[in-house]
Amino acid sequence: MDKGRAEAFSDGVLAVAITLLALDLHVEATGHGTLVHQLGQAWPSFVAYVVSFFVIGVIWVNHHAMFALIDRVDRVLLFENLVLLMFVVTLPFTTSTLADFIPEGGSNARWAVLLYGVSNMGMAFAFTAMLSRMIHHGLLVRPVPPDVGNRAIRRFGLGTIAYPVVTALGLIWPPFMLIGIGALAVYYMAEQTQILPSDG
Amino acid sequence: MDKGRAEAFSDGVLAVAITLLALDLHVEATGHGTLVHQLGQAWPSFVAYVVSFFVIGVIWVNHHAMFALIDRVDRVLLFENLVLLMFVVTLPFTTSTLADFIPEGGSNARWAVLLYGVSNMGMAFAFTAMLSRMIHHGLLVRPVPPDVGNRAIRRFGLGTIAYPVVTALGLIWPPFMLIGIGALAVYYMAEQTQILPSDG
Amino acid sequence: MDKGRAEAFSDGVLAVAITLLALDLHVEATGHGTLVHQLGQAWPSFVAYVVSFFVIGVIWVNHHAMFALIDRVDRVLLFENLVLLMFVVTLPFTTSTLADFIPEGGSNARWAVLLYGVSNMGMAFAFTAMLSRMIHHGLLVRPVPPDVGNRAIRRFGLGTIAYPVVTALGLIWPPFMLIGIGALAVYYMAEQTQILPSDG
Amino acid sequence: MDKGRAEAFSDGVLAVAITLLALDLHVEATGHGTLVHQLGQAWPSFVAYVVSFFVIGVIWVNHHAMFALIDRVDRVLLFENLVLLMFVVTLPFTTSTLADFIPEGGSNARWAVLLYGVSNMGMAFAFTAMLSRMIHHGLLVRPVPPDVGNRAIRRFGLGTIAYPVVTALGLIWPPFMLIGIGALAVYYMAEQTQILPSDG
Repeated sequence: MDKGRAEAFSDGVLAVAITLLALDLHVEATGHGTLVHQLGQAWPSFVAYVVSFFVIGVIWVNHHAMFALIDRVDRVLLFENLVLLMFVVTLPFTTSTLADFIPEGGSNARWAVLLYGVSNMGMAFAFTAMLSRMIHHGLLVRPVPPDVGNRAIRRFGLGTIAYPVVTALGLIWPPFMLIGIGALAVYYMAEQTQILPSDG
Repeated sequence: MDKGRAEAFSDGVLAVAITLLALDLHVEATGHGTLVHQLGQAWPSFVAYVVSFFVIGVIWVNHHAMFALIDRVDRVLLFENLVLLMFVVTLPFTTSTLADFIPEGGSNARWAVLLYGVSNMGMAFAFTAMLSRMIHHGLLVRPVPPDVGNRAIRRFGLGTIAYPVVTALGLIWPPFMLIGIGALAVYYMAEQTQILPSDG
Repeated sequence: MDKGRAEAFSDGVLAVAITLLALDLHVEATGHGTLVHQLGQAWPSFVAYVVSFFVIGVIWVNHHAMFALIDRVDRVLLFENLVLLMFVVTLPFTTSTLADFIPEGGSNARWAVLLYGVSNMGMAFAFTAMLSRMIHHGLLVRPVPPDVGNRAIRRFGLGTIAYPVVTALGLIWPPFMLIGIGALAVYYMAEQTQILPSDG
Repeated sequence: MDKGRAEAFSDGVLAVAITLLALDLHVEATGHGTLVHQLGQAWPSFVAYVVSFFVIGVIWVNHHAMFALIDRVDRVLLFENLVLLMFVVTLPFTTSTLADFIPEGGSNARWAVLLYGVSNMGMAFAFTAMLSRMIHHGLLVRPVPPDVGNRAIRRFGLGTIAYPVVTALGLIWPPFMLIGIGALAVYYMAEQTQILPSDG
């Protein structure tokens, strides 16, 4: 199956999900205090919006880089891609829940951290599964030796360990969740990552 | 008429509809119990989200496979495609209604099952009509003999009988609706279905 | 300027707008009567959803047919295209307003009819302006003599007179608005309209 | 990295954001005065909708013109593009806030003006940064001498000074914000701007 429509559909889902993040930005028109007071109260929503915007942005960049390695997709890869998108699409919900409950602190904030962590970990696992599928099932345009492939999966997979670690630290101090996930997004954005050594 | 924009438009509608499914995931910020309690109460919404996500995902995969058989579209096919999309777009509504009313049980739950069934049956009928149009009106890139075409339509159409059956069982025990539709999605996802024997 | 991205952007806007129509379909989970009663009350929303879905669907088909006549776009055409899309994007709002106020009757229903009429008339005028631009400013791939072009614009423009007429009749009997606009959509869908005689 | 998917993703985000602008158009079905009265009260929402629709429309036209100058993108350009989109996606929120608070006047209206100004200024700065990246890092298909490039950036950058000026005047008289931003959109739409002299 040609990869073109899988890319187009994924781009569409990522574009809609990234835009829906902004639905959590809103203020009440009347009777809820001055606008500047409301905007001040809503700072976690603004920070969470920026962080999740770059989380989805980085997913898009890496999705792009990964699909550049292949020419065609098989059904298992399409299924893994759907699992990836299923976690991406939960981000507007888990982002707004995190923004709403961080200021409350306590166990509510920690559950919100965990929920946001599930979205992020789900995406990381789906990504690694996709890379593994591409390497081990002959989908690569320019196949690599098994040890090179396995090293790439481990390196990519190691990166995904960062998400559980950040989530664990977020359970201790909830605001760290936004700081840590934001730092990972900046890192992945800045890093000139080569997914595979043969990759231009 | 070239099939390219029909695919692009369909991909767009499917991408938006699949993403809007997540709008039903939400919790109240304050005064509605703890977050973990709310998340626990919302489990039907999470299950329904996953099931309908794969329902739309499978539609996208099959839409893709079906359009790979043809080069051009005619007005009737475009109309049938719009009918298909019209039922797909109702899914966020019928999914959230099902999730809200299953826990209530009784006749409310059964009406919600029926509503969700209508979305799914509408899609199945529109798909079979499209396949029939492609086969019988000379749209196939590699035409097949009439008996091969009719067998393909029957096999595809037989699959659609599953939806009324699942709906009927869901009317008896509402939670079965999610189990049955989810199982059908997994089946269609896993199955290496060849729509036509001549299909690569 | 190449027409490709103008088509892609228009397809995106049309796909989102057609999907947002379904946001008006919703029921209350508890304390608002049984589900079947609510669904019965919501029939104008269902009818309006189907009608407006085909209105946008027909716009998409005609947009497609019109852009097939040209290779490139100029700034004025892009501006006219934006005006067209601006009216399309109001449809979810004017559709839900029409569905909400038709059952009320009286002057509220008539204002809702007028609002829905403005969406439809705006689209019809923008379409005719685009066709005129294409014909009179050398954008056609296969140019036509002035009298052939003017006949095409008149025929297309005559069609647009139908919208004010339907709106006027809707002001007399509001439910006619849905019947009339729906009939026009079916007519445009069924009709094998050739925009220009030279058009394949 | 090929520019194709960056364009497709940007088109998707712009298409969703422009369509979500209409979510701020709504009226209450019952018990909130007649429809005509509600529509009369909502005029700032209608004006703000039209203005922001053309703001995003103009961004799309210029994004298109700018990407026509290049063949490939680098990571920094992708990051700048994400920053641009991040500000675009805030527009439905800042537009509806502006529409809600302009009629209130006073400091609430001025904060809403500032918020809307931030969306617009962020987009203008991101655009200028992208043009500068294209010119100074060898991304142009047809490179230009440094002084020609710098002149283009200055001319484009000068345009962006308009946004702070309009915002400052809006702080004095809030309704000017819509008039000024609308006038800028019409100016950019009407102007046959050549981004670079070598640009066809």
